[in-house]
Amino acid sequence: MNTFHEGIQAMVETERDWNPSRPCPEAQVPRWDREFDVCIVGFGSAGGSAAIEAAEAGARVCVFEVASGAGGTSAMAGGDIYLGGGGGTPAQNENGFQDDTEDFFRYMMMAGGADADEARVRAYADGALGHYEWLRKIGVPYRTTYIPGKTMMPGTGDCLILSGNEFAWPYSDHAKPCPRGHLPEATGETGGFVLMDAIARRAKEIGVESSFDTKVRALIQSEDGRICGLIAVQNGETIYVRANGGVLLCAGGFVLNREMLEQYAPQVNHLSDDALSGGYDDGSGIQMGMGAGGQAIHMDELFTTFTFYPPESNVKGILVNEQGQRFINEDAYPGRVAHHCVRQLGSKIHLLVDEAIYTPPTELSRWELAAVGETWEEVEEELGFVSGTLVETIERFNAYASKGEDPLFHKSPDWLKPLIEPPFAAIAVTVGESFLPYFTLGGLRVTIDGEVLDGTGEAISGLYAAGRTACGLPRSAEDYSSGMSLGDCTFFGRRAGLHAATKAAG
Amino acid sequence: MNTFHEGIQAMVETERDWNPSRPCPEAQVPRWDREFDVCIVGFGSAGGSAAIEAAEAGARVCVFEVASGAGGTSAMAGGDIYLGGGGGTPAQNENGFQDDTEDFFRYMMMAGGADADEARVRAYADGALGHYEWLRKIGVPYRTTYIPGKTMMPGTGDCLILSGNEFAWPYSDHAKPCPRGHLPEATGETGGFVLMDAIARRAKEIGVESSFDTKVRALIQSEDGRICGLIAVQNGETIYVRANGGVLLCAGGFVLNREMLEQYAPQVNHLSDDALSGGYDDGSGIQMGMGAGGQAIHMDELFTTFTFYPPESNVKGILVNEQGQRFINEDAYPGRVAHHCVRQLGSKIHLLVDEAIYTPPTELSRWELAAVGETWEEVEEELGFVSGTLVETIERFNAYASKGEDPLFHKSPDWLKPLIEPPFAAIAVTVGESFLPYFTLGGLRVTIDGEVLDGTGEAISGLYAAGRTACGLPRSAEDYSSGMSLGDCTFFGRRAGLHAATKAAG
Repeated sequence: MNTFHEGIQAMVETERDWNPSRPCPEAQVPRWDREFDVCIVGFGSAGGSAAIEAAEAGARVCVFEVASGAGGTSAMAGGDIYLGGGGGTPAQNENGFQDDTEDFFRYMMMAGGADADEARVRAYADGALGHYEWLRKIGVPYRTTYIPGKTMMPGTGDCLILSGNEFAWPYSDHAKPCPRGHLPEATGETGGFVLMDAIARRAKEIGVESSFDTKVRALIQSEDGRICGLIAVQNGETIYVRANGGVLLCAGGFVLNREMLEQYAPQVNHLSDDALSGGYDDGSGIQMGMGAGGQAIHMDELFTTFTFYPPESNVKGILVNEQGQRFINEDAYPGRVAHHCVRQLGSKIHLLVDEAIYTPPTELSRWELAAVGETWEEVEEELGFVSGTLVETIERFNAYASKGEDPLFHKSPDWLKPLIEPPFAAIAVTVGESFLPYFTLGGLRVTIDGEVLDGTGEAISGLYAAGRTACGLPRSAEDYSSGMSLGDCTFFGRRAGLHAATKAAG
Repeated sequence: MNTFHEGIQAMVETERDWNPSRPCPEAQVPRWDREFDVCIVGFGSAGGSAAIEAAEAGARVCVFEVASGAGGTSAMAGGDIYLGGGGGTPAQNENGFQDDTEDFFRYMMMAGGADADEARVRAYADGALGHYEWLRKIGVPYRTTYIPGKTMMPGTGDCLILSGNEFAWPYSDHAKPCPRGHLPEATGETGGFVLMDAIARRAKEIGVESSFDTKVRALIQSEDGRICGLIAVQNGETIYVRANGGVLLCAGGFVLNREMLEQYAPQVNHLSDDALSGGYDDGSGIQMGMGAGGQAIHMDELFTTFTFYPPESNVKGILVNEQGQRFINEDAYPGRVAHHCVRQLGSKIHLLVDEAIYTPPTELSRWELAAVGETWEEVEEELGFVSGTLVETIERFNAYASKGEDPLFHKSPDWLKPLIEPPFAAIAVTVGESFLPYFTLGGLRVTIDGEVLDGTGEAISGLYAAGRTACGLPRSAEDYSSGMSLGDCTFFGRRAGLHAATKAAG
């Protein structure tokens, strides 16, 4: 009978609908099932890196993860980490690139957009080389090889790639360009998996405890406002966990929460339903932080991109909107190009190519050959464009390209070539629909040590965030470079873990 | 001695730095100085309208206002309220406009942008005619006269104006156009003052208490999470006020809080320092709501506009970016045009006019005559534009305009006229710098009765918001129509006041 009643009691307790937006007052906690120095919510690259640092600083650490193993969205990524400065990483140096810290800093400030966080960028620029060493030390394998040119994730196991707008206007005017995307040695697009595998192994080795299949439902707040624990559901049972040093939210972004997306980033309605996520970016980390008084910023920033190349010869083509106008230097990073595509009136963008440069795009399914002709007039007519619009755009582009100039959009001479060899073609992409999976950049406002800040800039005692639960280095979809997010997750995850461990010790 | 000590005690208490982002636990309240059914923070049009409804429903109401009198930002506005539907207001009907509720509804859904709130728009569309009667009843004077054509606030005391995109593409394709801006009878730009004067008088007549020169510093939260009062500073003394039915935040937006602007709407860096505010839109209302667990949405939406007309003949000109490209139908509402100006690459936009249509813009200080020529080639050269760019744009526009067509941007035939009478001129506006004062549209997520919602969509007991502290009808700068904000403030302020009064009675 007792067992039966206890079963019912457990069920009732589980079914209590903990609202992540409301911290549970400590006074309402019926018991403490576990106790740690640092509790981490989410075992992606941010949570894992934080756990390693916290444990190495002597803290008792547990990572609570809703999935059945470590990985999160990080494991789904290509594994690219944006690194440089200090003269250069081994991969940069071996391939002839010297990367000055100030160039790295200036580029990262531009890549952070209008509200780039100078203190955060400074810490990262100064610390990126040391971070590379740390990644190697915990077991992430890196070659020192370089894949030159414009590429997406190559999947060859090589290391260095160009993963942003470094060589494109206007960025190249303000910081000496250098490739800075660093991929782990991995076959296919498994770089993120390799990264997470190293992080998870290292965490286990040094005694980090993991609680998988565990959904954190709410934070616990003491009477003086400090976050002192969490409530989670594990195997259908509610557990109350005390955190002496703090709770660190590393639960990803909100790209799977449609309601949040529509309320913060309604431009999602112009995109496909294709979210980039390991399956659990439900916004609950951000909600728990906001519920404790944390401020969530840049929640409107949604990064999306499209397979404009490879082949890189496409970069020599030009992109036009439905008015037949060019609108961006086509050698900008595809994420930036995609951002400007979304801004155009109309839903179709066309890539114009000639026989000399055309090779079918790798991801053909996302593109459609819309028109082919022996003259650009034929292509214009076949597309149904207003007479003269496309032809004049092409003629002006060709006239300047033959001189190695692009006075209107500043495409680099490397990619300028008149489109004069028939047949000519227009390849169509539908804005949004044909783009790659998107993810969110907005999240909790945090110090460089991950302390969550309220609306007046005051830190909420005991509460930390890192990774896409926080708003970190990447906060402008228009200016984003690949590798910034994982760089931010791992680097600032480490700092947050260390800070929380220090608090626990103090 | 006692008096001296009490004075010191009062000073110490005042200096306690209440953080608006943290509700004060009820247990920490030393005493209750006052008690009301409904406490309202801010005496603008939202707070005033709420106070009237709450008091008429029998509640004891106090409005706490940081300034020395009622008014807020509402009193600085032109007083335009967006009204229609139900067949039309008296001003619409007397001037030959029938305004069907469904057209009104469909237009308002478009004007709300990608995340328009259907329930809110429905309530407003169904209730706008009744709201007009209420405004008249409380003493807002309205004529039934109409100022036709494209105008900004005319300041003549006439009532009906065109204040949005109703007649412009693509809006006109989806809802039968009708002018819907309703101005109080007032001389000069004092419509907002006249509106607020009526609201404040009415509130006083029916026994609403006002506490001016009173800054609300924090909310008070009971142990069960309910908002049950507020802490304010009045004449240097801290007062603790109990609110039985709830606290209603009507404290304006955050346009004067530079830190919040940069973190939520960093595009502000492209604008001038010219914020539209009565002086107290410091974001503290939104911060208090967020601190209690409220979700703030669409915080990136910043409305800005510019004096593109009068004279309305300018609408027959065309706007080009620095690439010499048109980018919008110039007969769209100036706020929409301004939004698209900000999207262009480069910082200057030029209005191209010919002798036949040119009249100097009214606010000349914001415009600069950049080039004049006997041919468009001369103008293009004088502007330093890439050869052929501006001329081709003009030639294409002229060719179609002479047929009454604009296939690229869908300007209405009413405003299409070839620009062929020399001399020709380009008038320059610097994006942002030359724009009019901006204001914020983002705020707390609320039900149609003003209940503040947390991140999971659950109402926070005892907490309400209205006006620009909430995210209401207007939530898309690109689609905004003048009169939507004051319409939202007064209409949904009333609903929130009534709901809080009902709670107090229950």
